[in-house]
Amino acid sequence: MEPTSGHSGSNAACASCSTSPTSWPARSSPARLPTALRWHAARRPGGAIYCHPTAHIASEETNAPEFFTSGARLFRIDGAAGKIDPQKLADALAQPVYGVVHFPQPAAVSITQATECGTVYAPEEIAAIATSTHRHGLKLHMDGARFANALSFVGCSPAELSWKAGVDVLSLGATKNGVLSAEAVVFFDAGLAREFAFRSKRGGHLLSKMRLLSAQLDAYLADGLWLDNARHANAMARRLVAGLTPLKGTQLLYPVDANRDLRGPAGPHARRAAGCRRAVSSVAVGPAGRARLSPGHRLRHRSHRRRAFPVHRQVCVSNP
Amino acid sequence: MEPTSGHSGSNAACASCSTSPTSWPARSSPARLPTALRWHAARRPGGAIYCHPTAHIASEETNAPEFFTSGARLFRIDGAAGKIDPQKLADALAQPVYGVVHFPQPAAVSITQATECGTVYAPEEIAAIATSTHRHGLKLHMDGARFANALSFVGCSPAELSWKAGVDVLSLGATKNGVLSAEAVVFFDAGLAREFAFRSKRGGHLLSKMRLLSAQLDAYLADGLWLDNARHANAMARRLVAGLTPLKGTQLLYPVDANRDLRGPAGPHARRAAGCRRAVSSVAVGPAGRARLSPGHRLRHRSHRRRAFPVHRQVCVSNP
Amino acid sequence: MEPTSGHSGSNAACASCSTSPTSWPARSSPARLPTALRWHAARRPGGAIYCHPTAHIASEETNAPEFFTSGARLFRIDGAAGKIDPQKLADALAQPVYGVVHFPQPAAVSITQATECGTVYAPEEIAAIATSTHRHGLKLHMDGARFANALSFVGCSPAELSWKAGVDVLSLGATKNGVLSAEAVVFFDAGLAREFAFRSKRGGHLLSKMRLLSAQLDAYLADGLWLDNARHANAMARRLVAGLTPLKGTQLLYPVDANRDLRGPAGPHARRAAGCRRAVSSVAVGPAGRARLSPGHRLRHRSHRRRAFPVHRQVCVSNP
Amino acid sequence: MEPTSGHSGSNAACASCSTSPTSWPARSSPARLPTALRWHAARRPGGAIYCHPTAHIASEETNAPEFFTSGARLFRIDGAAGKIDPQKLADALAQPVYGVVHFPQPAAVSITQATECGTVYAPEEIAAIATSTHRHGLKLHMDGARFANALSFVGCSPAELSWKAGVDVLSLGATKNGVLSAEAVVFFDAGLAREFAFRSKRGGHLLSKMRLLSAQLDAYLADGLWLDNARHANAMARRLVAGLTPLKGTQLLYPVDANRDLRGPAGPHARRAAGCRRAVSSVAVGPAGRARLSPGHRLRHRSHRRRAFPVHRQVCVSNP
Repeated sequence: MEPTSGHSGSNAACASCSTSPTSWPARSSPARLPTALRWHAARRPGGAIYCHPTAHIASEETNAPEFFTSGARLFRIDGAAGKIDPQKLADALAQPVYGVVHFPQPAAVSITQATECGTVYAPEEIAAIATSTHRHGLKLHMDGARFANALSFVGCSPAELSWKAGVDVLSLGATKNGVLSAEAVVFFDAGLAREFAFRSKRGGHLLSKMRLLSAQLDAYLADGLWLDNARHANAMARRLVAGLTPLKGTQLLYPVDANRDLRGPAGPHARRAAGCRRAVSSVAVGPAGRARLSPGHRLRHRSHRRRAFPVHRQVCVSNP
Repeated sequence: MEPTSGHSGSNAACASCSTSPTSWPARSSPARLPTALRWHAARRPGGAIYCHPTAHIASEETNAPEFFTSGARLFRIDGAAGKIDPQKLADALAQPVYGVVHFPQPAAVSITQATECGTVYAPEEIAAIATSTHRHGLKLHMDGARFANALSFVGCSPAELSWKAGVDVLSLGATKNGVLSAEAVVFFDAGLAREFAFRSKRGGHLLSKMRLLSAQLDAYLADGLWLDNARHANAMARRLVAGLTPLKGTQLLYPVDANRDLRGPAGPHARRAAGCRRAVSSVAVGPAGRARLSPGHRLRHRSHRRRAFPVHRQVCVSNP
Repeated sequence: MEPTSGHSGSNAACASCSTSPTSWPARSSPARLPTALRWHAARRPGGAIYCHPTAHIASEETNAPEFFTSGARLFRIDGAAGKIDPQKLADALAQPVYGVVHFPQPAAVSITQATECGTVYAPEEIAAIATSTHRHGLKLHMDGARFANALSFVGCSPAELSWKAGVDVLSLGATKNGVLSAEAVVFFDAGLAREFAFRSKRGGHLLSKMRLLSAQLDAYLADGLWLDNARHANAMARRLVAGLTPLKGTQLLYPVDANRDLRGPAGPHARRAAGCRRAVSSVAVGPAGRARLSPGHRLRHRSHRRRAFPVHRQVCVSNP
Repeated sequence: MEPTSGHSGSNAACASCSTSPTSWPARSSPARLPTALRWHAARRPGGAIYCHPTAHIASEETNAPEFFTSGARLFRIDGAAGKIDPQKLADALAQPVYGVVHFPQPAAVSITQATECGTVYAPEEIAAIATSTHRHGLKLHMDGARFANALSFVGCSPAELSWKAGVDVLSLGATKNGVLSAEAVVFFDAGLAREFAFRSKRGGHLLSKMRLLSAQLDAYLADGLWLDNARHANAMARRLVAGLTPLKGTQLLYPVDANRDLRGPAGPHARRAAGCRRAVSSVAVGPAGRARLSPGHRLRHRSHRRRAFPVHRQVCVSNP
């Protein structure tokens, strides 16, 4: 599917994406990423989903993607700094598995924006991935848990960072950016959205009185609140980095494109892949914005540690 | 399992259930009913779950129970006024299917409290059901979406209406009684709870920042707020009935034990079973408590109609 | 879908169905019924499948249909002698559930030919069911575990008893009629078949060296062997009935349209529904064709009893 | 679990494994590998299964393991010549994911014997893997599609190559060694077998008249027929290698421990990992045992090519 042709004039709401994000045909949902993904993969039984090894769906979802898709399989496509390498993806998708009954059929590619490493895909990077994706008939999903942070970093319109670059479905995260337990899934091809409400309901993601949670999204998107929040968070990340980098023995693992509230690549498997067994420090910034650096701090799982809330201003550093 | 022995001293939190509901070992969750049920059924692959034909899980969940259990099957056990007939359940559970590979193995019984008809199981009615359930090794689940309303009607302790009567797992609904999108699942046998966190996560029901939603349950349970809300809702239901019953051609379908914000048996299948194709009126009470009766109103699905919120004070009436 | 238009000239193999069953576009498979059904239901997540209460998929498959469809739900449509009542089906399909997110969406109707009661749907009975089925966009599946026996009874062409009458997918059983562990699934709309190979493989139903099993179907269908076998089995059933009916206290439960090697309605749930708790006798005919009647024999599950093989010549009788 | 203690005297049938393979408590089944695996993983929802990247379950089953386990995830543990490296497995299993809700919980390790590269695990290699596996409470599954070939190569008893070395469940393949579509799953801990019959049935793997297929296993195991077949196949593989290796430009990819009827590492993903994009030749040996070498032959998928049957005598060679 050509992303633009799939987004033709018949879908008037999308046509105005470039100016107003509030006109997206979004379905509000507390549903997490898998809900969007499962639509894709379920169309082709035994489907294959391609993602980066550090992708949240590959490292921290307790197999939710597999569960919701009745058993799709994730294939890891590597690349620097948390981003899928377009050439490696093209090679993987060019494997002669199509129509061969022994292999899971390629169904979807999922990229995270901003990535789990705090880096951001530029529109042309997305387009390169979308080209391979659509050439083979797959759909491109964007896990936009921090889409606003990415948008703020790139400085383009939401449309340029999503459907205009070839994204078919966007999980529009809001929870990490000021909203309480409400997120949206944006389908840029209305045909893809048809089954979504049923899948949400069946997965227990149509909550009673959900409209009260969803109402937050109006305020979130109106007047650019979502971008203000993201801009501030990104600025705080840069400030933290500016304070940390002079410190002896501290080294940035990745460019700080956008704020991430995770330290290091997510998950123990990803950490091992990155060779940072114990080198990732935990950095928290208190309410007053003063950094409390814990050099040499062993990485324990965040769920054991994150007492304070919110911890918006963290960054990936290596402290050997 | 004897319900009391399964609730021995080793689980100290439960031992005090009879006096303080806040000491329940509850896991807060936005998870709907299926999440609790799937635990049960998943222990026995291809399991059978027994419930009333009007049960919410059987009439309005878009197969969520089947989805989460990877394909358990619901068997309908009839009974008057939305309650499972204990003898019919005993007969069904006595079928010689145990260990025979051709039949789904009985796994769980689910009752709703208050029922979808607005009636309430008395403790001894629950105990009769629990006896059959446990005799055959099944677990008893209570869909307590309106547990507080039932508690207020019966006037006993939470323990007497749950584990002391033989309930193994309670879905403690709070959303229909003043809480925003937070519910709890209470396991009275700690062993049953072990896998629950993983299943919740895998089903996308461990939301980011969920603790902010869960915090409501503290205020809800402290100082009896939950019972106050339920008592008021029940009183309003009785008031509505008192005003409606003198009206010519109006007839109560079921005793008004507790408030229900649904009209008639839930779902078209259940409505047909009850023979009330178009006889159920919609009754809404405005903010000032003044009833606006719509006699002869066709039953349309509530999702098309319920604009106003909240509509706490509705009741089942038949208006031919 | 109009059954005939779905079977257009582009699918040349089907066009000749009326004369030669061997030219069906069959995929050989050891796959049981659920494999065919799951295709249907999987198209609409949380789908509803309609079948008779005595249907094999509803009474003896240990939830295989639910498993393969990731949680479709079976709705029982009653009718005399094991056949779905077309009016009851039409009523059920006319329920206003379409597009309403709270209800499983109707996906498929499944009929068994010959039925689990040994009766046979006439072509016009199938057509009546197909009309309702297709009006609402569902697909009609025929569980043809004993399709040959039905064909022999009706005396029409395979096409007249399948796609010409509106059947979209036929599970063509051969195992009960002389073939060892090989069956075929016949899609009359080629578009429906596309995903089938992948689903079979994923379900473990693409066996290594399966072609050796599948080869039997050539001999089975060539020269009418399948019809010869079925004709003989039906004749033996009639002979048995002729010998049994004069016996005092013996009463036929259903007309003996075709041979069934099950006694009484299948499954304990179905037996109870038919009110024949212990009244169904077991009748086996030895190699010499001499009936050994066991009046008043309690019905035990066949898997405990059927030592001899084959037991082709049994019939439903009631012996109170 | 210590493999020997899990195989105590209470399981008398197993105690004699060392002398007579026919006394194994085997359940005959046409079920493929996933059926055994799904038992394991289903015990821990969202489970993790560890296997070699070339494992059949990881490369050619169209996600059947994920499907049957309702979404377990496969983690690839590398190692030379198709065998899991015990140290890498130990490292992976030592990751601090246990009890952390964000990660799939380790459930099972699966090894193939003989491996997909035609190599064979020695008993002490299995024991090294079993030690890590059991230390963390996982179960060890052996995909024994060519168990007989491995047994013939090692020259020990079936028990020494299975439960005595720590295997908990063995898929005993027979189809690649002379049996028609019948395999067995051997549980060395009887407790693990309890649910298996139900899972088989639910997956459509309890075929009608299956006993006729299963009967082959008697002849297969009696009098050592299975070992005779395997010995012959291995000898033919060695003979082929002896004839091929002198050929200019031909190079063995792996030691020829046992016969494999696949060429090169299975699956395109595995082939790429092994860096043998087009270097693997196809070699077939005709009925008279005369090799027809096709140097430089591109590897196409076997399903497109294997017309002749059987092709028992093939071997992995590289022909650049």
